[in-house]
Amino acid sequence: MEHSACCGELRLDPDVREDARRRLLSIRGHIEGILRMLEKESVYCVDVLKQIKAVEGALDKVGGKVLQSHLREHVVNARERGDVDQIVAELMEVLKYR
Amino acid sequence: MEHSACCGELRLDPDVREDARRRLLSIRGHIEGILRMLEKESVYCVDVLKQIKAVEGALDKVGGKVLQSHLREHVVNARERGDVDQIVAELMEVLKYR
Amino acid sequence: MEHSACCGELRLDPDVREDARRRLLSIRGHIEGILRMLEKESVYCVDVLKQIKAVEGALDKVGGKVLQSHLREHVVNARERGDVDQIVAELMEVLKYR
Amino acid sequence: MEHSACCGELRLDPDVREDARRRLLSIRGHIEGILRMLEKESVYCVDVLKQIKAVEGALDKVGGKVLQSHLREHVVNARERGDVDQIVAELMEVLKYR
Repeated sequence: MEHSACCGELRLDPDVREDARRRLLSIRGHIEGILRMLEKESVYCVDVLKQIKAVEGALDKVGGKVLQSHLREHVVNARERGDVDQIVAELMEVLKYR
Repeated sequence: MEHSACCGELRLDPDVREDARRRLLSIRGHIEGILRMLEKESVYCVDVLKQIKAVEGALDKVGGKVLQSHLREHVVNARERGDVDQIVAELMEVLKYR
Repeated sequence: MEHSACCGELRLDPDVREDARRRLLSIRGHIEGILRMLEKESVYCVDVLKQIKAVEGALDKVGGKVLQSHLREHVVNARERGDVDQIVAELMEVLKYR
Repeated sequence: MEHSACCGELRLDPDVREDARRRLLSIRGHIEGILRMLEKESVYCVDVLKQIKAVEGALDKVGGKVLQSHLREHVVNARERGDVDQIVAELMEVLKYR
């Protein structure tokens, strides 16, 4: 039922894909940093919360880049392509919360 | 200037710490899954966005566990301990966004 | 610099506009309810916070309706219309936070 | 089942209550402004979305003030008062989403 499954034509832009990959590598490193923090018995709750928030901010940023690319490459021409219902429904789903 | 630095007494509860560690290991695995998705040329934007959202949901959950433990162990007794200003300020900071 | 200023052609769908109006009237009523709560000396913080959250949920719902209509009527055909840059920029701006 | 019902002792600080009332009056005015916008046939979706976002920002601000007061007056001394479970549970509930 995925759009990608139906036509195989809508692909994440290669530059954005590479940028997202690079950012997620850095986010993985950040999470490994939190994992190391959590090995210390003396770790303080609020320090963990700050790091989690920072990772969420970084994820929001990747998401924003992918979303912008999606809007620009696949949403603004959905009428021409003829898949408005699906494009709008899946976008609303993804935007629903945060 | 960290609270932890000032007194060394406020520590994340060991069980919550272990639970958070376990959850973050799973989140790291999830991110590695997204990194693998991003290696495929045909990956679709919305599929990436859904996965990012799922990771953010999982991070929110870890954050919620740590926050609840912090409230229960360190915030509800701050008046007795005498560090209300700092406890409230750092909590407001952490809750500010999302 | 508003889009609306540049061409006057992009308008909120009349049915969605009427629905939004109706919902915002109800939200205004909800806020008046909170104002009445706040006149009582004995009002409890958490009861106010719950009501504020409920109003934010209702506003999210109106926003979602307007956004969906905007996507469907004005975004999916931006390529044809030739204003992709502006449509995407203003959408990213509006989606940036929450 | 409300905390307020059980003891009647936990009250929103009078100054914060007055500040919240003043802010909510202004928010009501803002919503009336959006209602007037929505009477115009030519209103543009994104202009409505921006105003809704602005109102949500203002509500977040009131919520933040009330929350800070609640933390400072009622949460930091919950251990002494002996209602930790209820205080933490209702706070987690209110913080759950946004």
